[in-house]
Amino acid sequence: MKKYFAELLGTMVLVLMGCGSAVIAGGAAGAVGTGVGTLGVALAFGLSVVAMAYAIGGISGCHINPAITLGMFLSGRMNGKDAGMYMLFQFIGAVVGSAILYAIASPMGLTATGSNGFDPALMLPAFIAELVFTCIFVLVVLGATSRSGNSTVAGLAIGLTLVLIHIVCIPITGTSVNPARSFGPALFAGAEALSQLWLFIVAPFVGAACAAFIWNAISTPEQR
Amino acid sequence: MKKYFAELLGTMVLVLMGCGSAVIAGGAAGAVGTGVGTLGVALAFGLSVVAMAYAIGGISGCHINPAITLGMFLSGRMNGKDAGMYMLFQFIGAVVGSAILYAIASPMGLTATGSNGFDPALMLPAFIAELVFTCIFVLVVLGATSRSGNSTVAGLAIGLTLVLIHIVCIPITGTSVNPARSFGPALFAGAEALSQLWLFIVAPFVGAACAAFIWNAISTPEQR
Amino acid sequence: MKKYFAELLGTMVLVLMGCGSAVIAGGAAGAVGTGVGTLGVALAFGLSVVAMAYAIGGISGCHINPAITLGMFLSGRMNGKDAGMYMLFQFIGAVVGSAILYAIASPMGLTATGSNGFDPALMLPAFIAELVFTCIFVLVVLGATSRSGNSTVAGLAIGLTLVLIHIVCIPITGTSVNPARSFGPALFAGAEALSQLWLFIVAPFVGAACAAFIWNAISTPEQR
Amino acid sequence: MKKYFAELLGTMVLVLMGCGSAVIAGGAAGAVGTGVGTLGVALAFGLSVVAMAYAIGGISGCHINPAITLGMFLSGRMNGKDAGMYMLFQFIGAVVGSAILYAIASPMGLTATGSNGFDPALMLPAFIAELVFTCIFVLVVLGATSRSGNSTVAGLAIGLTLVLIHIVCIPITGTSVNPARSFGPALFAGAEALSQLWLFIVAPFVGAACAAFIWNAISTPEQR
Repeated sequence: MKKYFAELLGTMVLVLMGCGSAVIAGGAAGAVGTGVGTLGVALAFGLSVVAMAYAIGGISGCHINPAITLGMFLSGRMNGKDAGMYMLFQFIGAVVGSAILYAIASPMGLTATGSNGFDPALMLPAFIAELVFTCIFVLVVLGATSRSGNSTVAGLAIGLTLVLIHIVCIPITGTSVNPARSFGPALFAGAEALSQLWLFIVAPFVGAACAAFIWNAISTPEQR
Repeated sequence: MKKYFAELLGTMVLVLMGCGSAVIAGGAAGAVGTGVGTLGVALAFGLSVVAMAYAIGGISGCHINPAITLGMFLSGRMNGKDAGMYMLFQFIGAVVGSAILYAIASPMGLTATGSNGFDPALMLPAFIAELVFTCIFVLVVLGATSRSGNSTVAGLAIGLTLVLIHIVCIPITGTSVNPARSFGPALFAGAEALSQLWLFIVAPFVGAACAAFIWNAISTPEQR
Repeated sequence: MKKYFAELLGTMVLVLMGCGSAVIAGGAAGAVGTGVGTLGVALAFGLSVVAMAYAIGGISGCHINPAITLGMFLSGRMNGKDAGMYMLFQFIGAVVGSAILYAIASPMGLTATGSNGFDPALMLPAFIAELVFTCIFVLVVLGATSRSGNSTVAGLAIGLTLVLIHIVCIPITGTSVNPARSFGPALFAGAEALSQLWLFIVAPFVGAACAAFIWNAISTPEQR
Repeated sequence: MKKYFAELLGTMVLVLMGCGSAVIAGGAAGAVGTGVGTLGVALAFGLSVVAMAYAIGGISGCHINPAITLGMFLSGRMNGKDAGMYMLFQFIGAVVGSAILYAIASPMGLTATGSNGFDPALMLPAFIAELVFTCIFVLVVLGATSRSGNSTVAGLAIGLTLVLIHIVCIPITGTSVNPARSFGPALFAGAEALSQLWLFIVAPFVGAACAAFIWNAISTPEQR
């Protein structure tokens, strides 16, 4: 139970700080990143993972992302019950994170939530991007936390990978690669964000499954 | 005694370099961060913690923040006498850091001090932000320096967490999460900064207490 | 065979993410880095190396750069057959990376590929820069992965070195220091990029050979 | 002899890449940092230290700064002959670095050299800043490389400390904290830079001596 709550807490922090950097420094949905820029928002998401990796990594492994939990489950590193509970608490944590952000930003007159979205005419590149980037992200997680990996700095490497993905992907979808991170802000953002939410659930999950498959193909059993 | 002086020194560096980046590169209280931007000021505060963690970490543990010292005390990792002395020397160090910054910046015609503040109409979101962000910060410190943590890179992870918090919180209060860091510059800034100082003492201390409570709830005795 | 495929994958990610940051956030060949700036593109290339180092480092050593493979071969750390196969798969990976980037960027109306180039009147400084910077890069790789090096954070140090090189070299050539990274985008960019491709193959290879020579000169056998 | 040459090489890289970022991305002495900004130049200097720490750290300890060598000598960690030779080769390396930068930048029409300087009316704050910031820098070096330090990430922590110092000090003097780094570019810059060179030799050396004294005062023999 403690590890499930740790996942809730970690996902809450990821959404509060990551989306918070976009909402508060940006000031408006149409100007994501003004103030700290795309680089600042990218750093906020990635450093949230670094922070939580060293805070709760020893308790739950710090997935704080249902796509990572799926990749871990498909790689045989956790059982189905834990995987399901991890995901449930991650989604709850994301909603709590969005609620705290709302409590801070709303009195400041800020209405953005940091929700993901895409130009309907560019649905296909958005889908490809979310799928491929989640695949890369989960591959780094599987490799860095494997026996052939390097646990000392795994949290840092994984967080910096998320910075990288945001640098490339913010202009496309705002960057999800994490169904829970998209879910929380969408609830507070309203109809349009909710109508596009499916892509940020399906594409990351497919990408995570691809990562588990690829990692299995390029590693030997001793390296896993 | 040596460890108390190390805390004085570390807090002095944090205030001198962190506030120094805002004052010198910004050039005016009304334009915090011009020159290096919000990102540069955020990096300066966080990297000050990284620098000091590897300089004095082996001597005093490098709290350089009364909120961290409170969290450590409430988690049973230090006794009351040491906690009180740590805090005292941290407050003195912050004043010394502000004095050195004044000696450099004053001849350059710069009058800002890097003091924290908030729009009186937005006192509640400022209080929530300082409380929640200090809670997150102290939680990372408690986790990263615990037995289940990872001491090799703890200093790096904690410093990067402070970068993260500044990215999100600079537009709200300038970011304290550290009563000593707010105290030194406020002394040199004058009446308005002093009148708001209470918030940057109360909210971080409450946040640190919450962190100690949460860490106790999500970790097992072996992980602490 | 698994390690060759890992090299393909790693080089693919380097080209997709590194060039992707320039193409997608920049929006046009003539405005590399608008949006995330030179610093954002520099970070994207360097963090791609960090990501892959901790993902596939345990499998192939994560060269993802024919110049590094040449330096490793000349330092006697790998045989000729492996070196040739590594390079072949790196070039294939770079082409795949450029193809995926094309699939995402093309529907967005973006025609840049992130290819390298230089002002024909400044061929000599471009050649010197690519040679010297590749020499420095490969020297860091040889040192950081040696017995006297520090394998825990080698991936991080090498990635950050690539960030450094991009900060300095983007205004000169866009920064190659990696023949495969120049090859993929040039194929998609057309005649001019292809006509300048020779420099981004010759200069990095010569620089890598210099690095192997220098490393041999400054280290003792026990340190290698 | 090998370790002396390693110091030459490392200092060469520091000056070439650090000053190179200011000269090439800046394009003119009067506009240091345009293109990558103050943050980019700060990162270039700091990451040069990270790169060299993991390349030549195992060979010479990677001082690449006469002030650090003085601090190490005064702390009893090296003998006088080695200290003198280290400094000699560091100064030579800085000149070589400036020469290579000249060979690349000169054909591009760039005449800046990255030399340090200060407004004559602000000599005192410049002196204080260089003295205090070198003291902080050398203190981090002495702590991070001590027995109570953390050698695995020492190179990273020291490099990031140099980033921090540049963020604060670039608007004051361009940031030296390293006599050799100031010497090479001044030779190529001409009379004014040479006439101010004394400050960038005296202040860092005094700061380093203070650091050795402070480190001795706050650490116990077992921690050194």
